[in-house]
Amino acid sequence: MINKLMNEIKKKNAPVVVGLDPNLSMIPDHIMNKAIKEYGETLEAAAEAVFNFNKGIIDTTYDLIPAVKPQIAMYEQFGVPGVAAYKRTVDYAKSKGLVIIADVKRGDIGSTSAAYALGHLGTIKIGSKEYNPFDGDFATVNPYLGSDGVKPFIDICKERNKGIFVLVKTSNPSSGEFQDRIIDGKPLYEHVGEKVREWGDEFMGDEYSYVGAVVGATYPEMGEKLRKIMPRTLILVPGYGAQGGKGSDLKPFFNEDKLGAIVNSSRGIIAAYKSEKYQQFGSENYNDASRKAVEDMLLDIRTGVGL
Amino acid sequence: MINKLMNEIKKKNAPVVVGLDPNLSMIPDHIMNKAIKEYGETLEAAAEAVFNFNKGIIDTTYDLIPAVKPQIAMYEQFGVPGVAAYKRTVDYAKSKGLVIIADVKRGDIGSTSAAYALGHLGTIKIGSKEYNPFDGDFATVNPYLGSDGVKPFIDICKERNKGIFVLVKTSNPSSGEFQDRIIDGKPLYEHVGEKVREWGDEFMGDEYSYVGAVVGATYPEMGEKLRKIMPRTLILVPGYGAQGGKGSDLKPFFNEDKLGAIVNSSRGIIAAYKSEKYQQFGSENYNDASRKAVEDMLLDIRTGVGL
Repeated sequence: MINKLMNEIKKKNAPVVVGLDPNLSMIPDHIMNKAIKEYGETLEAAAEAVFNFNKGIIDTTYDLIPAVKPQIAMYEQFGVPGVAAYKRTVDYAKSKGLVIIADVKRGDIGSTSAAYALGHLGTIKIGSKEYNPFDGDFATVNPYLGSDGVKPFIDICKERNKGIFVLVKTSNPSSGEFQDRIIDGKPLYEHVGEKVREWGDEFMGDEYSYVGAVVGATYPEMGEKLRKIMPRTLILVPGYGAQGGKGSDLKPFFNEDKLGAIVNSSRGIIAAYKSEKYQQFGSENYNDASRKAVEDMLLDIRTGVGL
Repeated sequence: MINKLMNEIKKKNAPVVVGLDPNLSMIPDHIMNKAIKEYGETLEAAAEAVFNFNKGIIDTTYDLIPAVKPQIAMYEQFGVPGVAAYKRTVDYAKSKGLVIIADVKRGDIGSTSAAYALGHLGTIKIGSKEYNPFDGDFATVNPYLGSDGVKPFIDICKERNKGIFVLVKTSNPSSGEFQDRIIDGKPLYEHVGEKVREWGDEFMGDEYSYVGAVVGATYPEMGEKLRKIMPRTLILVPGYGAQGGKGSDLKPFFNEDKLGAIVNSSRGIIAAYKSEKYQQFGSENYNDASRKAVEDMLLDIRTGVGL
């Protein structure tokens, strides 16, 4: 799957992923009202609206981008129907040829991580039949529990050619509270980065490893350091756009081969129509605004990185 | 909710929580076969079997224990139907008066943590109607992202008198890989423990804080230190039983008031009938074996701690 993702990034010249992180406040009235008409003021209506909102964005952007990254929190907030909308979103995006980065940030003790890995990336057997429960291609993983919380994900990835992105340095303002603390002369995130390289060296694709890393666009100088620590690691870079990262900040995350990073934008793309810059599209054409926002993001990144 | 939990612990003299972490291998044939007869070899059948398995255990143990802790990974492994079985389990356990500790180990950047908090502990408004999506009473939270990943949980807890348990020192063998690293003369888990106390001081129940901590039974000497760092923090202690923790190891986790800790056992209780010690019950009476295992655990802990 890492090879497919790298090939799609090259083919589309688009080291970009669209974060499908819908909140109710982003969903245009015509979509929400239709869902409420059908399902009433229920969680099912919210879930239906979320799926249709996503579908519209996938339809207008899939030819430009290699992957989407649904953030499962935004679906869990609508309970079981929301989680069903997450799965419908994964299935629909796959039907358009997109790679799915399941932003689930799971991580637990070994046997529990194995169950998460199985649910999000793996296959489960019920009697004689096999199922892929949530059927992601990559999942984000939290490293706080150490190797035995991460390795069950890698084991299942090996079975099915799936991948993970391990949180190394996150994009949020207080990420430094623990991640930047100095241990033996270097910050915790560098120690985690070294582990990611170690795990990744054992599970390489053609050019990049199946074990990727998350490093926030909001910390480019740390990205530069981590790029060197993890030379064959694909870095998933959140924090572009709404969180403050710009195209010109992104160069340090890339290797000299102009590869090695994939930049996420969520609100900046999916809620583009609500910003001044794209408001002329109107809420009915929210997804055309998203397409334009992807095009502008691609231009900004290609220029900033020199692609 | 922390006051309810503390009162139930005292009333039942039971600082114990049963982890509802079912794997297919634990489910007796009569339950699985019935579900497959009804739903075929499907994820729905697995989910139905999981719920019925849990229901049997809740029915035979609810009068002995204050709380249950469903581990959501074990439900996510069955996809959307599995997550629905998680919610049915929460609802059924609540109907029996049990406090729900949602073992979800979520944690993300601020806006995403807010969505998780809302989904697992909060209320969401769809039009004029309000829903409690997963309706837990407490949730476990991963601290790797720092304060702004944890505080959205606390904000929602304050609205609804819910609580959290923050991972401080986990029970797994490689938890020390990052958590034990020395920063300014003390291990990372102590720094996290200090943050937990700080967050908790601002949100106190009558005796203990709404902000609890997770510290593994497998590390009693660290539990002793953390007990002192976080004197008014309820410590959720996993790792008893199947993971190796014993009643006599647990004393350091308790305060002089004989309170301050709640000990989890999962496999040791729910799969008791599969162990030599309880095999005489047979798989048909798996839940009577679970009741006996809870009684034995209570005796072991009351003796070990001196309750």
